[in-house]
Amino acid sequence: MKTQLTVRGNVATAPRRVVTDSGTVIVEFRLAATERYFNRQTQEWEDGTTSWYTVSAFRRLAENVFRSFSVGDPVIVSGKLTIKQWTSKEDKKGTTPEINAETAGHDLLLGFTDFTRYTKSRSPLVAEDSHDGPLIDHGWEEPEALSA
Amino acid sequence: MKTQLTVRGNVATAPRRVVTDSGTVIVEFRLAATERYFNRQTQEWEDGTTSWYTVSAFRRLAENVFRSFSVGDPVIVSGKLTIKQWTSKEDKKGTTPEINAETAGHDLLLGFTDFTRYTKSRSPLVAEDSHDGPLIDHGWEEPEALSA
Amino acid sequence: MKTQLTVRGNVATAPRRVVTDSGTVIVEFRLAATERYFNRQTQEWEDGTTSWYTVSAFRRLAENVFRSFSVGDPVIVSGKLTIKQWTSKEDKKGTTPEINAETAGHDLLLGFTDFTRYTKSRSPLVAEDSHDGPLIDHGWEEPEALSA
Amino acid sequence: MKTQLTVRGNVATAPRRVVTDSGTVIVEFRLAATERYFNRQTQEWEDGTTSWYTVSAFRRLAENVFRSFSVGDPVIVSGKLTIKQWTSKEDKKGTTPEINAETAGHDLLLGFTDFTRYTKSRSPLVAEDSHDGPLIDHGWEEPEALSA
Repeated sequence: MKTQLTVRGNVATAPRRVVTDSGTVIVEFRLAATERYFNRQTQEWEDGTTSWYTVSAFRRLAENVFRSFSVGDPVIVSGKLTIKQWTSKEDKKGTTPEINAETAGHDLLLGFTDFTRYTKSRSPLVAEDSHDGPLIDHGWEEPEALSA
Repeated sequence: MKTQLTVRGNVATAPRRVVTDSGTVIVEFRLAATERYFNRQTQEWEDGTTSWYTVSAFRRLAENVFRSFSVGDPVIVSGKLTIKQWTSKEDKKGTTPEINAETAGHDLLLGFTDFTRYTKSRSPLVAEDSHDGPLIDHGWEEPEALSA
Repeated sequence: MKTQLTVRGNVATAPRRVVTDSGTVIVEFRLAATERYFNRQTQEWEDGTTSWYTVSAFRRLAENVFRSFSVGDPVIVSGKLTIKQWTSKEDKKGTTPEINAETAGHDLLLGFTDFTRYTKSRSPLVAEDSHDGPLIDHGWEEPEALSA
Repeated sequence: MKTQLTVRGNVATAPRRVVTDSGTVIVEFRLAATERYFNRQTQEWEDGTTSWYTVSAFRRLAENVFRSFSVGDPVIVSGKLTIKQWTSKEDKKGTTPEINAETAGHDLLLGFTDFTRYTKSRSPLVAEDSHDGPLIDHGWEEPEALSA
């Protein structure tokens, strides 16, 4: 069973777009999700812990995320969570929660959107995409550049 | 524990906006979520069952949904699911899955968006809203008009 | 994207076990999930709406559910939600929320469990099952008997 | 919006039980969730990334988890995810995904369970618990000992 989750948060880094040798478009950004909780003593809502995620989108979703999301935007991301362990060249170790996005969108709790439906003529790069492309196992390894 | 879910689907009815006597803005629409599955025999992706939901949004989220969503738009809705049983005046009985939306947005798998952050001056009606307003238990009953 | 959800509720009907012609074991039961909410006026927790689901489990999960769950047990079910529309022979129409369970277990909020790990010798019927069997698209249609 | 998720995995450390000065029972353990994926080249299911989580349960759920879960058990945990950043006394920094469990149970995909309903006489320590206790904001801080 995949670990599925939906996170509301803010785009914390400018989405970065990479095209692999085989032509797959990948977009990646950092997402900051700050919890809100009610403080009984002050009787006010306050910010709690901020959770950080690395979000990856593939193919058509990647193109649309790249075109739509800017730093600071409140967004929703839904997809598969993996907690990645990594070791750097300097032997530093760390943990990064990664979300392989199945879908994403602007969070309408904090603003409104004008939507333009994707058509092949508007975005020729990913015209070959299948509807369910982003989640199909693609037998392709994440490039070093992205996971650093 | 609330039953939490995230649904991708299409807006199937024009969002309807109601203001209660106490001034709460509610927006409601029908959401159609069509499953996609891979047919092994034809080796093609096909449409499966379409699941229908009634989605309700409150206050600020309601205003932004009302302003942003049109019939046919591909959207994401995340919130609390309740399966409501109802009996009509003619003694007809039925079941309606309802989602009390915590957030919603356009689905970037199928298009791109221009986002405008909500500010008080732009939407005076709901200026008093707290950030977490939509999910606070509001001690307010859903009006008959909406649940019919 | 599949509509994934996790529901806490009570087993409302005795799990029913069916074996298809091709040998697949299916177990099905009704799940009643009653919401709890805090009534501000009485300052007490109260029962809210009860949501009803039909839960199906397949293969090995089915066997273990059949052996473990009794009517009244508090359980957790996690899987894929579909809202099925049906028409009976008498032309009656209805809506049934169905959960295709990926996993299930007793809810430890309300009791404790002794667990016995499944081994082939204990449950020969489903010995051929793969770990991820229950969710693989099996190209098999739900028998009439179960969906009635 | 809380980040809600359900994880299937194995209990990786013996659940540890702590009682706070105010009498709240907390149980904590590490959960290892190993992804399974289908390798197209070998045509076999293989183990993928293992994601590690720290799971905390409170009050009655804590007691039942402590009594029911052993190292190695396959379990389901459902609750709120937070990605915690920490700095140790030696100035080492790290990231820990934490799940505040709303419910948990043995995973019936891999075995079966005998369930005993909790009654006050069986577990006097937490008899005062409300049904929804574990998730009520309790205005209580996680002790140093547990978050180290």
